[in-house]
Amino acid sequence: MKKLTCLQFFAALVFATMAQAADSLPSWNDGLAKQSIIAFVAKTTTHGSPDFVPLAERIATFDNDGCLWAEQPMYFQAFFIFDRIVALAPQHPEWKTQEPFDSVLKGDVTAALAGGERALLEMAMATHAGMTTVEFAKIVDDWITTARHPVTKRLYAEMVYQPMIEVLAYLRDNGFKTYIVSGGGIEFMRPWAERVYGIPSEQVIGSSIKTKVEMRDGQPVLVRLPEINFIDDKEGKVIGINQHIGRRPIAAFGNSDGDLQMLQWTAAGSGPRFCLYVHHTDGEREWAYDRTSHIGKLDKGLDEAVAKGWTVADMKRDWKIVFRHQ
Amino acid sequence: MKKLTCLQFFAALVFATMAQAADSLPSWNDGLAKQSIIAFVAKTTTHGSPDFVPLAERIATFDNDGCLWAEQPMYFQAFFIFDRIVALAPQHPEWKTQEPFDSVLKGDVTAALAGGERALLEMAMATHAGMTTVEFAKIVDDWITTARHPVTKRLYAEMVYQPMIEVLAYLRDNGFKTYIVSGGGIEFMRPWAERVYGIPSEQVIGSSIKTKVEMRDGQPVLVRLPEINFIDDKEGKVIGINQHIGRRPIAAFGNSDGDLQMLQWTAAGSGPRFCLYVHHTDGEREWAYDRTSHIGKLDKGLDEAVAKGWTVADMKRDWKIVFRHQ
Repeated sequence: MKKLTCLQFFAALVFATMAQAADSLPSWNDGLAKQSIIAFVAKTTTHGSPDFVPLAERIATFDNDGCLWAEQPMYFQAFFIFDRIVALAPQHPEWKTQEPFDSVLKGDVTAALAGGERALLEMAMATHAGMTTVEFAKIVDDWITTARHPVTKRLYAEMVYQPMIEVLAYLRDNGFKTYIVSGGGIEFMRPWAERVYGIPSEQVIGSSIKTKVEMRDGQPVLVRLPEINFIDDKEGKVIGINQHIGRRPIAAFGNSDGDLQMLQWTAAGSGPRFCLYVHHTDGEREWAYDRTSHIGKLDKGLDEAVAKGWTVADMKRDWKIVFRHQ
Repeated sequence: MKKLTCLQFFAALVFATMAQAADSLPSWNDGLAKQSIIAFVAKTTTHGSPDFVPLAERIATFDNDGCLWAEQPMYFQAFFIFDRIVALAPQHPEWKTQEPFDSVLKGDVTAALAGGERALLEMAMATHAGMTTVEFAKIVDDWITTARHPVTKRLYAEMVYQPMIEVLAYLRDNGFKTYIVSGGGIEFMRPWAERVYGIPSEQVIGSSIKTKVEMRDGQPVLVRLPEINFIDDKEGKVIGINQHIGRRPIAAFGNSDGDLQMLQWTAAGSGPRFCLYVHHTDGEREWAYDRTSHIGKLDKGLDEAVAKGWTVADMKRDWKIVFRHQ
């Protein structure tokens, strides 16, 4: 058998991997974004490649809102909060004369959110605490399988980005552990993350409230408390990754400035690195927003992506479909 | 082929598994403890068994100090703290006139610990904070590969219990994910847990201090702060398991009352459950202590183990060897 030069070997490798990956990323248009993903996986997973990464170090982290599923016109967890307020209202007659609950019950979300973060936090605590972890998981699971998005009328779990689902599976097929690292609630994502994304509970990192152990009928239960434990956003994503994983990802995916620190942290490691920003450019199939958006603002991150040569996935240009139902 | 009755099937299964497991747990004497481990693994991992547990749910949690490695005459992390104080003393001339540091530098550990938890915490913060996470990992790694136990003169990583190493490997060979859930520092265990126990960083849960992100030379680093973040002991073990894993273990291993809540939490789930207490009964090969010990006190837990029928591994009776070097 003829010996190949190193360059021939690598060219053959990328070609073979491209051919194989063509089936793995069918919702991606051919282009730089798709090629960069495939090239990164090829060089990090092929024995003999100078950039080969051992299995244990193949860690990839993904933001959730706006990266794996949509986040417009509002974070989906906010809709969950509003739906819970409506569901719990009969047990809280006092809410009828108490903002921001009163406005939610009247269907006036804008007024409810006029109180800013404080109001949202108050509503989050009123709906996310006071029950056991098992009870809360059941509430989330019931909601995710029945509630529908106000604009598309689809189940929220149908509002996930098909091209990103393919990236998750493609990475896992190549020995990567895929993690969610989200500003959203850790216990809000876990009940459905495995079913929808193939990501098990222990690979979900998010914001959390405190819990305490109580004995009920001689058995311990974990009760959710109305007190912030951890905010997994911006610098918090780096802290959360270190706390949960204890090693630096080699690949990170985000869509907003809130993910910038996670991407910087990932890029700052030695050896091969991959950072990708999903850029919301498709106002027809999804929503178009970036530098001035109140949700998922992507401004500094976009500049840094260009400066550092990170991959930017332009939803309009790079994705054949956004959602599976399209 | 002759059809087997259900009982015949299960008997054949346990027999076959026993034969196979005989090689997996060679440091365990035949007896109830060993049999209970093998029977649990057999029934939870064999398709067709009424107690079969899917791969994703095979979570086993292990305390570290006194369960996977020794904890006498003091928690090994305390020796690390003292060694660090000696190493750092040249940069801290003020310690010569400042308790508890002065006593440590004079080699008087008893006097250093006279200040109780407050003194220990002060020493922990002085030695565990003020550097980046990468720097701290390097410090721990240097220590664990060179420092020696004051009584046995062995490396601390040689003070691990060989029978428990076998249980870890046996469970993993049968599809379990093995976790450490320790009151010890999460970042103190991670640098060597994979090498010594085969447990990767992301499966280590422990106590932690806070960290913050700083930019140095345009790159983010995580700096360790002298502030408690989480104490992973007693109820904290349940909270830590829920936070990191997000599902209930089906097997839990401990050795003290500090592990009781973890075992209760594990036992309280539905389906097959396994709880094991390591009982320190061997004053010759290791140390003998339980109900009145200041370290690794096992009192309520021992009563509950008997009452609930949990497995108690009697080190003297059940273990052929304690350490590999015996």
